[in-house]
Amino acid sequence: MNVLLVYAHPEPRSLNGSLKNFTVERLERAGHTVQVSDLYAMNWKATLDADDAPARDLAEPFRPSTDSRHAFEGGTQPADIAAEQEKLRWADAVILQFPLWWFTMPAILKGWVERVYAYGFAYGVGEHSDRRWGSRYGEGTLAGKRAMLIVTTGGWESHYGPRGINGPIDDILFPIQHGVLYYPGFDVLPPFVVYRTSRMDDARFAQTREALGERLDRLWETAPIAFRQQNAGAYEIPALTLRDEIAPGRTGFAAHVDGAGAAS
Amino acid sequence: MNVLLVYAHPEPRSLNGSLKNFTVERLERAGHTVQVSDLYAMNWKATLDADDAPARDLAEPFRPSTDSRHAFEGGTQPADIAAEQEKLRWADAVILQFPLWWFTMPAILKGWVERVYAYGFAYGVGEHSDRRWGSRYGEGTLAGKRAMLIVTTGGWESHYGPRGINGPIDDILFPIQHGVLYYPGFDVLPPFVVYRTSRMDDARFAQTREALGERLDRLWETAPIAFRQQNAGAYEIPALTLRDEIAPGRTGFAAHVDGAGAAS
Repeated sequence: MNVLLVYAHPEPRSLNGSLKNFTVERLERAGHTVQVSDLYAMNWKATLDADDAPARDLAEPFRPSTDSRHAFEGGTQPADIAAEQEKLRWADAVILQFPLWWFTMPAILKGWVERVYAYGFAYGVGEHSDRRWGSRYGEGTLAGKRAMLIVTTGGWESHYGPRGINGPIDDILFPIQHGVLYYPGFDVLPPFVVYRTSRMDDARFAQTREALGERLDRLWETAPIAFRQQNAGAYEIPALTLRDEIAPGRTGFAAHVDGAGAAS
Repeated sequence: MNVLLVYAHPEPRSLNGSLKNFTVERLERAGHTVQVSDLYAMNWKATLDADDAPARDLAEPFRPSTDSRHAFEGGTQPADIAAEQEKLRWADAVILQFPLWWFTMPAILKGWVERVYAYGFAYGVGEHSDRRWGSRYGEGTLAGKRAMLIVTTGGWESHYGPRGINGPIDDILFPIQHGVLYYPGFDVLPPFVVYRTSRMDDARFAQTREALGERLDRLWETAPIAFRQQNAGAYEIPALTLRDEIAPGRTGFAAHVDGAGAAS
């Protein structure tokens, strides 16, 4: 299988760098083909701006969404954007690996999402009608592919627990797992999270690699998070609210996962 | 009063540009002094990297957190970072204004947070003991100042409602409002959110300005979101989980707001 690893850490001689190398080796040894988008090494342009629509009408205001659509449809996107889209098309699975900085991905990776996720590619796909609100949330260009996060954080696991001060890790990652990955169609696997990175001795590092290796070995068998498809009956259209009979009385991120326990 | 507006949109002739200009005028007319950090116009460097610690030991790996601390404490930070920190110290209130891109702030603003929020300035502040886990979440360098988000999004309000498919807007903004603003000490006001920006005619724009103007007029009187202070008794230390008697049985982001309704 083909795996794309999108990796965002500035220092190769880091825990993230070691885990990245381990991931590539483990997947290649299992017979998979791996491409790495090492965003720092690529000097990835993090900021979405008018330069990303070089063929646009300069007399008009820059419109990020509309101009993205025209550049994508007209084949006038910058080469770095088109290359990443091609890698996504090529991949059977995509891994995003990053340190959790201020409770989300680093800016350089966020800018990868903003620039690569063109209108017509990752959003603005499919028909809008009284039964479909575009091909998104479980459908779309990247449907049939798998995605997984590898995340490191200095905080303790309890700080990210159900009643931890930072909020539950599943909720912190929801805008990425649901909003960035499930949105254009990925099946999203549970994340691999490494906590308390400042206390990483050899023994813990060995355990961490072992646990990550097992996750990578089961990349094709692990059950995805059961996010609810937008156009399969769970949501009113166009309000896009859960129908009354779906997770009745529940609110919040977890209500969008099928069978994810009781109200909390 | 002094207000810092940190603004992230690439096009001045946009809804965001108009709302930014309106905000500055409204505040200045009320007698306040306003500084704007227009990140796109400043060509803000979005990516945190080793160049942000120019005095570091080049023989050693770049360590984002440790090297940030040394650069901050040693006065060797890049000038653009130090200037933004000085604006934050100067401000009585800070407004972050941005379009919601992929359910969070644009990369350029995320990079502002990552680079300006140095170790020793916005985190790594205060003592760690069995009663205090650093000065954060309600305490810290920016305590006593107010902060507010102005956010625009193409989605409908119902899509961001309690059972909306994107998740509730309060939960989507929690990592920013709690994790980026409350963390270094800000009192965080409820956000001002503009939905369905593609359907903005003159009448709606007038209404939107009016509503925003009222929020700006009440910037100093509006009650902040009642996030729970970390070191004031609500949390076990060092686990940093809510004590059993606080919001008993509740989990998730909302449990960290005092008195925010029943379990959901």
